[in-house]
Amino acid sequence: MRGSSVGVDVGGTFVKIGLAAKDGTLLRSVSMPTEPGRPPEEFVRRVAGAVKDWRFDSVGLGLAGGVDAATGTLLFAPNLRRWVGFSFKRAFERALKVRAVADNDANAAVWGGYAVGLKKRARHVVGVTLGTGVGGGLILDGRLHRGADGAAGEVGHQTLDPKGPLCGCGKRGCLEAYAGTAGLLRIARRRMRRVPSPLTPKALADAARAGVPGARAVWDEAGTWLGVGLSNLVLTFNPDAVLLLGGVARSGRLILDPVRRVFAAQPFREPFARLRLSAPADRDWGCVGAALLSRESR
Amino acid sequence: MRGSSVGVDVGGTFVKIGLAAKDGTLLRSVSMPTEPGRPPEEFVRRVAGAVKDWRFDSVGLGLAGGVDAATGTLLFAPNLRRWVGFSFKRAFERALKVRAVADNDANAAVWGGYAVGLKKRARHVVGVTLGTGVGGGLILDGRLHRGADGAAGEVGHQTLDPKGPLCGCGKRGCLEAYAGTAGLLRIARRRMRRVPSPLTPKALADAARAGVPGARAVWDEAGTWLGVGLSNLVLTFNPDAVLLLGGVARSGRLILDPVRRVFAAQPFREPFARLRLSAPADRDWGCVGAALLSRESR
Repeated sequence: MRGSSVGVDVGGTFVKIGLAAKDGTLLRSVSMPTEPGRPPEEFVRRVAGAVKDWRFDSVGLGLAGGVDAATGTLLFAPNLRRWVGFSFKRAFERALKVRAVADNDANAAVWGGYAVGLKKRARHVVGVTLGTGVGGGLILDGRLHRGADGAAGEVGHQTLDPKGPLCGCGKRGCLEAYAGTAGLLRIARRRMRRVPSPLTPKALADAARAGVPGARAVWDEAGTWLGVGLSNLVLTFNPDAVLLLGGVARSGRLILDPVRRVFAAQPFREPFARLRLSAPADRDWGCVGAALLSRESR
Repeated sequence: MRGSSVGVDVGGTFVKIGLAAKDGTLLRSVSMPTEPGRPPEEFVRRVAGAVKDWRFDSVGLGLAGGVDAATGTLLFAPNLRRWVGFSFKRAFERALKVRAVADNDANAAVWGGYAVGLKKRARHVVGVTLGTGVGGGLILDGRLHRGADGAAGEVGHQTLDPKGPLCGCGKRGCLEAYAGTAGLLRIARRRMRRVPSPLTPKALADAARAGVPGARAVWDEAGTWLGVGLSNLVLTFNPDAVLLLGGVARSGRLILDPVRRVFAAQPFREPFARLRLSAPADRDWGCVGAALLSRESR
C-alpha cells in the first residue's frame, strides 16, 4: 500500500514483521523464529520472502542490541552475537529495493509510542519499555538520542539500591529488578500469601482489581520503585513527557498511581509540574515504531 | 580587550564577576554580595559599575536557578526568588550595550569545563559539579540540553538508596547526600575516629594523602556512591565523556579511582568502554563558562 512501511522487530528468539500505515496502524503482521545462530544473509532472505507480496515504500528494523543508526550496522548484541558488524540497512535496501533503516529495538518502540501515542506533541521524552527487560529510549529535541556508541537508553539498569534484589544483569537493585516482569513476580511471591497461578503480570493485575489480598500492595511496591527510577530520569532530562510501554505498563492505574504519588512528593517541583505521564494502549510498538522510523528524514 | 567576555556567576550569597579571554583564561575577577532581597535592576547597576573600565564584547550570566535561555529570563530560583520573571539578558544588553546571555549556573560551569577542559572534543557530555550542592549539565550534540522548563541537569538529586541519609532537599539517599560537601563530611564523621579540624574536603584529601587512618575509606565510600550515580547517567545517556568539576573533584584520584572501579565492574560494557572521565584542574568554571557561553551562536 502507498505510504506503508514494513517494521521488523528483531528479538533474540522471535522476529515480528508488520506492515504499518503512515498513521501507525498495523495492517498485517507475521512472526517467525529469529535463528540468530544462522548467517544474517539468510535472515534477510527469510524476511524478504515473508513480505514479498506486501506493498510498501520503506523498511525499518529494531534490533535487540546497539546499532549505528547512520550505517544500520549492529554494533553489539548479547543475543545476536553472530550478526554484529553486519549492515542491515544495506542488506535490506539491496534485497527489497526500498529505503531501509535499522535502530535499537527499544528506540524503535519508543519512537512508535512518541509518533502515535503522543503524535509527536512533545520535544523531550523519556520512554521506558516495561516487559521481561526494562529498556528505554530518549527523545531529545524531537529526535532519538542514541549516544556515543548507540548504547543510550539503558534506563532499566540504573541502580536504585545497591543492596537491593539481584538483577538479571548481575548488579543489585536495578530498576529492572523491581519493575520488570521477574521483579514484579518476585514482589508478588514475597507479599502475597497465595499468588495467582499461572503467575503473570496480567493475572496480578486481575487479582488486584478483584481485591485479592496483597495484590494491590505488589503494584504499589513495583510502582513506587518505578516512580523513583523515573524521577531520577526526569530530574536529569526535564522532559515534557514520560512514556510507558510494554506488558507491565498495561496494568494502567495500578502502576501509574504509585508513580504519580512519587512524582507528587518530589521536593524539586519544576520538572514535575507540567510533566505528562502517558501509557498509550499497548500495541506492537517495536514493529510500528521501526516502520515509522523508516519514514523519518535524517 | 578584544575578544574578551564578562562572565557573571550568580549564587544566592555571592556574585563572582570575571573577564575571560576567548580561550577561557580568566584575566581578572571581582566578587560582591548578591543581595537577592533588593530589586534586580539594582543588581544590574552594581555589576555594570564593577565592569565599567573593562573592555569586552559580550556578557554571560550563570544564575542559581532555572533560566529560559532564549529570553534570559529567570524561571525559578529558591535563593533568588524576588528576581524570578526578570529578563537578565535584556537588562544587561541595555546596561552594557553588548550581547548578553543568561543560563543556569551549573550549565555555565559545565560549558566552561567542556569548552576549555575538553576543548569541545566530545559530542555528548555529562557534567557534574561537586560542591556544597551536586548539580550538573548535559551537553548533547555539542549543545547544552536545558529541558522542557530549563530544569534539566539536577543529577545530584537522583535517588541512589531510598533509605539512605537525609539530603538537604528533603529526600533520602540522593547522590548529593554522599558526594556533596555535607555528605562527604558526614561519611568522615562516621568513618574516622579523629576527623581533621577544621573538617573540609581539602583537609580530608590531605589526611588521606598523609595516611591518616580512615581518611582514604571516606573517599572510597563517597567515590563509590559517585560511581553508582555516574553509572546511572552513563547507562542512560551513553556520553563520550563525564566531566567532574567543583571543590570535591579537586581531590583527584582519591575520588576518581573508586569511580573508575565502579565503572569497571559494570556488566554493560559498551557505554563504559570508550568513556572518558575527566576532572580538569579547578577554576572559576561558573564565570569562565558564562563568559564563553555568551560567545556561542544560538
